[in-house]
Amino acid sequence: MKIDGIPYRSVWVEPSDGWSIRIFDQTKLPWSLDILRLTEVGQVAQAIRSMQVRGAPLIGAVAAYGVALALRKDASTERLEQVVAELGETRPTAINLRWALARMRAALHNLPAGDRVAAAYAEAAAICDDDAETCRRIGEHGLPLIESAAKDRERVNVLTHCNAGWIATVDWGTALAPIYMAHDAGLPVHVWVDETRPRNQGAALTAWELGKHGVPHTIIADNAGGHLMQHGQVDLVIVGTDRVTRNGDVANKIGTYLKALAAHDNGVPFWVALPHSTLDMSVGDGVAEIPIEERSGTEVTDLTGRTADGRIETIRVAAEGSAAANPAFDVTPARLVTGLITERGRCAASEAGLRALYPEKG
Amino acid sequence: MKIDGIPYRSVWVEPSDGWSIRIFDQTKLPWSLDILRLTEVGQVAQAIRSMQVRGAPLIGAVAAYGVALALRKDASTERLEQVVAELGETRPTAINLRWALARMRAALHNLPAGDRVAAAYAEAAAICDDDAETCRRIGEHGLPLIESAAKDRERVNVLTHCNAGWIATVDWGTALAPIYMAHDAGLPVHVWVDETRPRNQGAALTAWELGKHGVPHTIIADNAGGHLMQHGQVDLVIVGTDRVTRNGDVANKIGTYLKALAAHDNGVPFWVALPHSTLDMSVGDGVAEIPIEERSGTEVTDLTGRTADGRIETIRVAAEGSAAANPAFDVTPARLVTGLITERGRCAASEAGLRALYPEKG
Repeated sequence: MKIDGIPYRSVWVEPSDGWSIRIFDQTKLPWSLDILRLTEVGQVAQAIRSMQVRGAPLIGAVAAYGVALALRKDASTERLEQVVAELGETRPTAINLRWALARMRAALHNLPAGDRVAAAYAEAAAICDDDAETCRRIGEHGLPLIESAAKDRERVNVLTHCNAGWIATVDWGTALAPIYMAHDAGLPVHVWVDETRPRNQGAALTAWELGKHGVPHTIIADNAGGHLMQHGQVDLVIVGTDRVTRNGDVANKIGTYLKALAAHDNGVPFWVALPHSTLDMSVGDGVAEIPIEERSGTEVTDLTGRTADGRIETIRVAAEGSAAANPAFDVTPARLVTGLITERGRCAASEAGLRALYPEKG
Repeated sequence: MKIDGIPYRSVWVEPSDGWSIRIFDQTKLPWSLDILRLTEVGQVAQAIRSMQVRGAPLIGAVAAYGVALALRKDASTERLEQVVAELGETRPTAINLRWALARMRAALHNLPAGDRVAAAYAEAAAICDDDAETCRRIGEHGLPLIESAAKDRERVNVLTHCNAGWIATVDWGTALAPIYMAHDAGLPVHVWVDETRPRNQGAALTAWELGKHGVPHTIIADNAGGHLMQHGQVDLVIVGTDRVTRNGDVANKIGTYLKALAAHDNGVPFWVALPHSTLDMSVGDGVAEIPIEERSGTEVTDLTGRTADGRIETIRVAAEGSAAANPAFDVTPARLVTGLITERGRCAASEAGLRALYPEKG
């Protein structure tokens, strides 16, 4: 998608050297667009852990390039196994990370060591191209939901949580792909953007993305969605996800479950957009089985932003001496999910629905 | 309650002059305890509007003293009617404000002008004493809920939203009164404190209050409560309220409805603590009829806090150019409320329950 008219992806190989990796430092958005150059796998792991790159599909794509960077220095089988294991530990909840690493390992481990570096770059590039195309198709399959809601309405209000936009993927996004397509098609779409505490990915990233593309949107506190739904101000909800189980349970940013409850209570359709790589058919009950990352309490007590005179400052907003807990994801049970939007079409959030679209999945 | 060992109320008459009004500037908490002196009714109105005083019962008590300050300058019937009307406009959602002003008007309008100032101070003082005693009784009637939950548990986890503590009332608080009593009685109570965006009354005020009193607590993002309930980490929810209708619908800080939905979905008791002055028997359907205050979007996009080196700074956390909406309250339908805790005992959130406790209410 475009930033100030220039098309970007959210990860790419630096053209001038052909091997180093470029990402945006997403912890600096929306205040500045810092483009980082990653030259070692340790930097990749750190970029994932520190959330300089985030978003389930993007984490997988960047980790794939991390394997390539590691193999440039040591292309042995031992190193391949080691780096796949190490990168797999950087974040616990999103399944795309392990999916991308398994794909890299499968493509590389039977090759001679001397062929692995070139093959790793080719496979990582293929993962990126696949992700962009997958997200474009998610947009196509989600678009009819917005078109249908647009009938007889002056504007269609879509609520989204966290950032499942193009910068959470390689391009297009998942939850935001149908919204970009609807906007580009001239539909009167307006997005309620949950700010998404504690890291404010909604207010900082989704609002930034939508603003740069010109999509009308309004930021709200995470607390406000239920009230808006009670008063008919939300026509549908579309969110992304970090892992969908074979039962159709949906792990996503903390707070998603609360919005799904409110949507259910008010008859508002609640859709979840995902690529195939987010499916985890090995897990049934998401609430019981998906590991939930516990992050630092300082993400809750302290915030970073820009002062009126342009300085970036970090402030504590909580009472001194009070600790905070910070579970980063929750699981929305399938019973609250109207349906899933995938690159192969829409389906029910159920094993039957998923198996009909993905018969080849184990 | 106490701050660093010294007992306080949250509003009082300055003893050295016998007429000016003292409040904490709650917009400065938790960073500093600034005690303001109010000498004119315009300052009272501004303190309510700017949320230097907030909390439904406290707003009523401070407005009562506002009437007294106005009458010191002009004790005419016209001025009495005018100031009651003006102060009644300062905040739209909490009913206690109008209740306190109606009580002041009833006590004063049949008196000779010359007797009104002394009577106004006496009536405002009576409102304050009544509120403190009312809240103490709410604590007594809520305490058995925590005692009962404490059986066979190493700790009782109570989740609360916003600040319904002693600084939201004259003393004791509403939702926090049972918690203070349980803690003082040696029960192992721990409080999950919703930070309560956008104004962070939980992280800034409730955490501060509980910390000053020594009650164990942990701040969480508003998004986290549902996840904690799914995993058995919340034994009961107790919140305050700004208005309860005769049907038992509950207006409270934005986001309360989402927590009530999660409590209902997980079989967690959801209790609402209120004094008689919060009841509005003139309203039936709270979702349809209670006016919801819409506050400035800058409360969502900008935050104030303290830097590591002690400066108070205001930062913007949202993308530049993105607007925000800020409804300040929502309404939780009675069907999601386990029961009400009042100064007269506990009851169902229903007209029958309320009329059994308050047969004199119209």
